[in-house]
Amino acid sequence: MFNYIIVGAGLAGCVMAERIVTVLDEKVLLIEKRNHVGGNCYDYYDKNGILVHKYGPHIFHTNLENVWTYLSQFTDWYNYQHHVLGFIDGEKVPIPFNLNTLHELLPENLAGSLEDKLIKKFGFNTKIPILKLKKSEDEDLKFLADFIYEKVFLNYTKKQWGVKPEELDPSVTERVPIYISKDNRYFQDKYQGLPLHGYHQMFQKMLENPNIKIMLNTNFKELIKVENNEIYFENKKFQGKLIFTGQIDELFNYEYGELPYRSLKFKSETLNKEYFQETGTVNYPNNYNYTRITEFKHLTGQKHEKTSIIREYPKPYNKNKDIPYYPIPKKEYNQLYKKYLEKASKINNLSLVGRLAEYKYYNMDIVTNEALSKFKRVTNER
Amino acid sequence: MFNYIIVGAGLAGCVMAERIVTVLDEKVLLIEKRNHVGGNCYDYYDKNGILVHKYGPHIFHTNLENVWTYLSQFTDWYNYQHHVLGFIDGEKVPIPFNLNTLHELLPENLAGSLEDKLIKKFGFNTKIPILKLKKSEDEDLKFLADFIYEKVFLNYTKKQWGVKPEELDPSVTERVPIYISKDNRYFQDKYQGLPLHGYHQMFQKMLENPNIKIMLNTNFKELIKVENNEIYFENKKFQGKLIFTGQIDELFNYEYGELPYRSLKFKSETLNKEYFQETGTVNYPNNYNYTRITEFKHLTGQKHEKTSIIREYPKPYNKNKDIPYYPIPKKEYNQLYKKYLEKASKINNLSLVGRLAEYKYYNMDIVTNEALSKFKRVTNER
Repeated sequence: MFNYIIVGAGLAGCVMAERIVTVLDEKVLLIEKRNHVGGNCYDYYDKNGILVHKYGPHIFHTNLENVWTYLSQFTDWYNYQHHVLGFIDGEKVPIPFNLNTLHELLPENLAGSLEDKLIKKFGFNTKIPILKLKKSEDEDLKFLADFIYEKVFLNYTKKQWGVKPEELDPSVTERVPIYISKDNRYFQDKYQGLPLHGYHQMFQKMLENPNIKIMLNTNFKELIKVENNEIYFENKKFQGKLIFTGQIDELFNYEYGELPYRSLKFKSETLNKEYFQETGTVNYPNNYNYTRITEFKHLTGQKHEKTSIIREYPKPYNKNKDIPYYPIPKKEYNQLYKKYLEKASKINNLSLVGRLAEYKYYNMDIVTNEALSKFKRVTNER
Repeated sequence: MFNYIIVGAGLAGCVMAERIVTVLDEKVLLIEKRNHVGGNCYDYYDKNGILVHKYGPHIFHTNLENVWTYLSQFTDWYNYQHHVLGFIDGEKVPIPFNLNTLHELLPENLAGSLEDKLIKKFGFNTKIPILKLKKSEDEDLKFLADFIYEKVFLNYTKKQWGVKPEELDPSVTERVPIYISKDNRYFQDKYQGLPLHGYHQMFQKMLENPNIKIMLNTNFKELIKVENNEIYFENKKFQGKLIFTGQIDELFNYEYGELPYRSLKFKSETLNKEYFQETGTVNYPNNYNYTRITEFKHLTGQKHEKTSIIREYPKPYNKNKDIPYYPIPKKEYNQLYKKYLEKASKINNLSLVGRLAEYKYYNMDIVTNEALSKFKRVTNER
């Protein structure tokens, strides 16, 4: 009945489904174990009628024109620019650490001279990874690097990942560089925003073509099996294409062992006041057990007499009860992933797309772009 | 794979699904042609963040203790009591027509003497169908009946059904009687209210058991066929039980002709003020082309600086583009329905539940009760 089966109705799965029915005019079966589409981008109105993100804050930002244009077919945007403050030494200061942060945290003369040195060495308006700054030979810059490392990176990374920054792939610490700039925004991408009426409405629009059959509450294992490099759907050999966006180790029954992930526990709260904090997100690198607090009304622009916030408590991932939020970017795990990938490559009619199936800490725009590219590849193959 | 397949994820289908997985611990496939569950009860937050009912206002009310207890497992309630005003002779007066309406519309002395006569003849706190009152031999009561018929019933019925009250089954006009009482509420049921966090959250809770596989965007005809009194699922003879909550004539390919329905067109609007009208619903029997305007914030209790309203324009049903909101309660159509029912009765593993499959103008509580009873019957049969 179906030429295409997609496992997972997150961003990757929904983009693939939309492209297949729209461009190829084929039928798609989209299998999702949750009772809603949209994956971790899912948002909904909470008990007080405030739009919140169920699986933590999702701020869309991209420099990819094609991705922005593609998604803009399905939603208008609230042109939100994300600002993050870090609670450091009792003050809330701009994150990523930038020249304003420098002046807020350090005595004026010292800040001034460090600013001069930074600009002279790296140039104004540049981004420097902390681990690179730490290697400075200049004593003052080394002092600054250690200060920032200590106050901004070390404890946040330990909370978030359970390890020190050095133990992670540099791509992770590079996500939040030091920014030699007075730009207080968290992202500098050309396009930033949130779907004007929420992510869920955007996904519903993407999936409105009746050629996309959406099967909720359904674990793919109830329908799909892989044996001897063949895919079986309801116990019959499946001749179509399987697009898998779930955990690759689960697809192969953990044959080579489990791929590790980092998980989160969320604590949500609605407060009887109009606003709780100054910006969308405040990071707590050194205090408390949560990494950050996000206040959704800043992100969505919603007006409401109350306000809903969410605290994030990182934790190890247990496959029987947790959500695998982040693949852990470490060499050894990437090697384990490659073993699974090799196994997958022997299955002609299998495509892997998305953060879980590719075991990469992708942002939303990159996932979308990946899915759009893979769609083209899938199409050409046929 | 499935012992139970349910067509339609409206109230009837969801109750059946919930009962089957909870009580029998069986797997259910729930097939729904829309991209959401909840049928016509579906509600969502509109573009301005106001909770609205997509398919017109749904106010839950019942005297059935078992129904209230059953649904209360899945939701708390906002204890709303529905009030309707009718725009008559330029004034908004209580509907159903009651003693207060009488005094508001007629001169004081006349109203007083009619009130005495009504109470004497029918008793205080009784409900009288208009077509019964019209048969009064007393000249004053006959005058009153004609007045009410003219001002309240005739034009509303013509708009709503496209025919005069006399042409319909009495059960329809009896839905809104004359109420010899000072009770201004639209319903007198013991239990009344709206799900505290909306119907959709109630349905999601009903369907959260992963043994309910929900297939959205899927017309049952893509999977199910009936031939020679046998049900085929994906072209194989289906041995389990099919619970069908859709249109019975569609199930049998309109073999005996189409069952007629009445449909509606909705026009929604959000206004830049806190409230638009005094009560949840205002009826317009004699003016404009809509039958009524409902303002959702009255129903849901939501606080918001804006307000969303919906106007209802009844229209004939066209099976290629309209939603079949109301079966039309006329003898000839019931006879046509019976032919389909007889055909259905020859299929051992088919159950019909709900407003469409039973071709009856059921309220939500009656549908729930029907489904609960049919579930018991289905269980005993096995």
